[in-house]
This record gives sequence, structure tokens and C-alpha cells, in this order.
Amino acid sequence: MFEETAQAARATIGDSEFDRDTAVTLREPGVYGIDLSAGWTIINAVNGGYLLAVLGRALGEALPHSDPFTISAHYLTASQPGPAVIRTDVVRTGRTLSTGQASLFQYDEEGREVERIRVLASYGELDSLPDDVRTSAKPPVLPPLEQCFGPGDAPTPIPGSSAITDRLMLKLDPATLGWVLGKPSGKGEMRAWFGLADGRDADPLSLLLAVDALPPTAFELGLSGWVPTVELTVHVRCRPAPGPLRVSITTRNLAHGFLEEDAEVWDSADRLVAQSRQLARARLA
Amino acid sequence: MFEETAQAARATIGDSEFDRDTAVTLREPGVYGIDLSAGWTIINAVNGGYLLAVLGRALGEALPHSDPFTISAHYLTASQPGPAVIRTDVVRTGRTLSTGQASLFQYDEEGREVERIRVLASYGELDSLPDDVRTSAKPPVLPPLEQCFGPGDAPTPIPGSSAITDRLMLKLDPATLGWVLGKPSGKGEMRAWFGLADGRDADPLSLLLAVDALPPTAFELGLSGWVPTVELTVHVRCRPAPGPLRVSITTRNLAHGFLEEDAEVWDSADRLVAQSRQLARARLA
Repeated sequence: MFEETAQAARATIGDSEFDRDTAVTLREPGVYGIDLSAGWTIINAVNGGYLLAVLGRALGEALPHSDPFTISAHYLTASQPGPAVIRTDVVRTGRTLSTGQASLFQYDEEGREVERIRVLASYGELDSLPDDVRTSAKPPVLPPLEQCFGPGDAPTPIPGSSAITDRLMLKLDPATLGWVLGKPSGKGEMRAWFGLADGRDADPLSLLLAVDALPPTAFELGLSGWVPTVELTVHVRCRPAPGPLRVSITTRNLAHGFLEEDAEVWDSADRLVAQSRQLARARLA
Repeated sequence: MFEETAQAARATIGDSEFDRDTAVTLREPGVYGIDLSAGWTIINAVNGGYLLAVLGRALGEALPHSDPFTISAHYLTASQPGPAVIRTDVVRTGRTLSTGQASLFQYDEEGREVERIRVLASYGELDSLPDDVRTSAKPPVLPPLEQCFGPGDAPTPIPGSSAITDRLMLKLDPATLGWVLGKPSGKGEMRAWFGLADGRDADPLSLLLAVDALPPTAFELGLSGWVPTVELTVHVRCRPAPGPLRVSITTRNLAHGFLEEDAEVWDSADRLVAQSRQLARARLA
């Protein structure tokens, strides 16, 4: 199904909704403006992965290297759709790696800047890396895409919650969907096929979105509330091949009001293209 | 053996070599001085975990909360023993969490500041967290401490390499020591009992040291060169109980000149007290 839709009206890297909605405008050296799109919200909150992609894009413009190799974000206050400013700082530039910092600000009712998210990242050039691979990691086992379920496959869409779901091709493994039927598995696992709804292929920036786009693993652990991210670090390990991605998220340690979410992203060539870990708050009561 | 030594002349949290060597002196608001100790070097490089503990300590003084819940460090240039200055920035203070940034600088031959490492961290109060635990994580299986091997157990110490080993109680699982005999297992695993040699118990700051104190997993993958850390993120999940820690480090994806090292630290009460991941460079050739 994804293939068919994609063939019909396929957006491309550089010419897609995701590219337009993450585009930043240079205001002065190192300072960028953006209008955060309401299209990437869950309920009323701007998705953390979209925000990371926006900051990742600004850093890619500010630094001499293009690709985020490792990017760590601390989420400070909830972002709203609308205008924002990004201030970047080049920390160090080297031959193969450079390091930068960026903060995204919005404005309170008095027009004062409020910091939403701060990131620290090291960038390089994925295409310049050697091909050698000695990985022992195995791709997640997922049913074929056609046997997985998206938010649009529910009999009734959840009102107001779906802005981001219109923009994603997200098909969840039924084995991790017990929570939808009120029967969570008790395992901290969530797996899905992932792409952009307009057929745009994945690139390093969209991987930053992919790691934070699935429902929280906490739902399969029987929790139902919001699971706000405190910190999210993503390692981009390889430029993804065209085609849908597989995302597997695991939580092992739900304890003392916090949990980690470890995500792996695999491309259609069976390569582990990104690894991420986030620390999130969870209400156990 | 650890127990006996510890009883004989036990250092305590707040009164130990680790505490003295991570102590920072307030110079002006938010700015701290330290003399990086030569005692925590491997060959000539200052250990990355010790540096993280130093920065973690400065942030604990600068922020209204005491414990690093999540701390991300990007390593910029190699630190040397000797004077350094730490500049901190309070990013946000909340009721239960606060976020800060810190950079450690040293001086080049012309006396100019050179940034060594930059961190972004969110702090809280471990002791205020709820007790609820729904972890599915299992502690690593290690032989008893007496059946594990430390650097001092080698017939001949490696000259010049051992400053840090004098300060650690590090006993490695023989199953992960094939590399010492020229027979690496090919598995990206390293496991050890860990403590401070003077018997000081673990605390959140020493956990930052624990995650980066074992030999690189790359050695068991058949690599022999230096594996410099690009970025290291540590989540401290629980205040450790007294007694030796177990540290387990795993690498699944050695690819394209980089690898991840995932560390878990378990305390004597079988609790997962810290999780970390680093991205490091590895030379495959």
C-alpha cells in the first residue's frame, strides 16, 4: 500500500512537507527563524522528534559538516506551533567532526524569549565513512507492512490528536498494540514501519523524527498518561536507503518515576541507521 | 579481598581521593577552578569518566538540585593533568528538575583557553523519587569477585599505563578477557566488578566514572587501537547501595568507523543504578 501511494505522488528529499516545515531562515550569523508548523503536533504539543529535526537542520547550516552523528537534546518547556528563533554556537570545528550547540526559543505573553529545547551535537559527513561493518545487531522482526496497523486504521479517529499522523506512514506491529484494546502486553516494546506520508524517502534529518514518532512504550507497560521527554540522544550511523524504515523501541527500566526508551531504526537494506535513547518521566500511580 | 581492604582503611563519601580530585573551587558566580589530577589518567590521557564527574560536580554546585539524572558530554580535545576552569550556565530551574550546561577549558602554549569538553545535563533529587519499580532488566551474570581479574593481577604491570588503575577496584570477568591473551571473543562485551580502591562507596558522581572505566569493548572485537569517545550520555536512575558495583558494557554496532558502548551499572542490592551510551571512533583497519 505504501509503495502504491508513494508511486502516485512521491515527494522527494528537499521537496516535501517535512523539508518545508523544517526550513530555517538565516536572520543574522548563527541565528535562524522558523514558524513551527501545527502539522507535527500530538494533541497540542509539538512533537519532540520534529523539534529535534528543526534544530538538527539549523546546526547543519551553521556547522561545516552536514550530518548529525550524535545529537543530544534536553527538553525544557513545551513548544507551541508558531514563530521561534534558533541560536546556534559553533563549539569546535575539526577535519572530520565538528561540534555545535543550538537553542530554540519562543515568546511568552510579554514577548520575552522562553527557551524550549537545547541541543549539543557532533556533525560529520556520513558519505565519507568507510564501508566496514562488523555489527552483531539484528533487525527487529515485524510482520509485513500490510499486516500492521496505523492510526487511520482505527474505526474512529481520535479527535484533535491526529495532526502528525496525517504526515506519517506509521504502521504498528499488532504484537505491540495490546494497549489499544485495553490489554497491554506488560512488555516495554513498540515496533512499527515508518515513513513520511507523502513518500519522501528517509535522510539523516528524518531519522531524528523517526526515533520519537511511535506511541510511548509505557502504554504497553499499562500506563496511560503523558510521557514527557527529559532528554533524547540520537546517533545517526548510516545514510538510510530509500524505502520504509523499521523502528523498534524498548524500555527495560521503568523505575522511580522515569523510564528509558531505546530506539533502533533499520533501513530497507537491513542496516542499523540510527540508535537513540531518551529519558522520560512516567507516572506510575 | 575487596571487603578486607575496605574494612582496613575505608574512605568515605566526601572524604576520599575521588572527592578531593573532583573538588572544584568557586572563582566567580558560575565559574569554578580545578587542578585535574594525574591520578586518573590512562597512558597520558585524562579519563573521560573522571572528567565527566568533575563537570557533574560543578553542575551540582551551580544548580539547585544535587543529582545528575541525565548528563550528555561531547569530548572536544584531549585533557591534560593540570589547571582547568569550568564555566557553567543555568539553563532552566524547575521544581523537580533543573537543566545546566558546563564547559571545561584548559590553556594552550600562548595561555589561550581551549575547550576540552562540553556537557548538558538535567539534575534532580534521587532521594525524592517514588520507590515504584517495574523494571524487566536483569543484572549481568558475573563470576564472584574473587574469580575475576584486575590490572594488578597481570604478571607484569604495563609501564606508564596504570595511574587510574591504582585508584580503582576493577575486576574483569575472565569471559571478556580473551583480548589479553590475543584471543578476543569477537563479542562486543566487557563486564567487571567496580569500586574505588580506597573503599569509598559509590554515589551518583562516581557512577559517572564507573561507566567509562572498563577497557573498550572494541578489544574483544579484535581491535587494538585507541577508541576515543565522541559523546557520552549517562542516566543515573537510583542512588547506589554500599558495596561493589557490577558494570556490563555491550557493543552491537561496530560500523563505518564508529561504535556505540552501552553500559549498565548494578548495585549490591540488584538495582540498575545507571545506564549510559557513548559513541566512539574505532579504526577497523
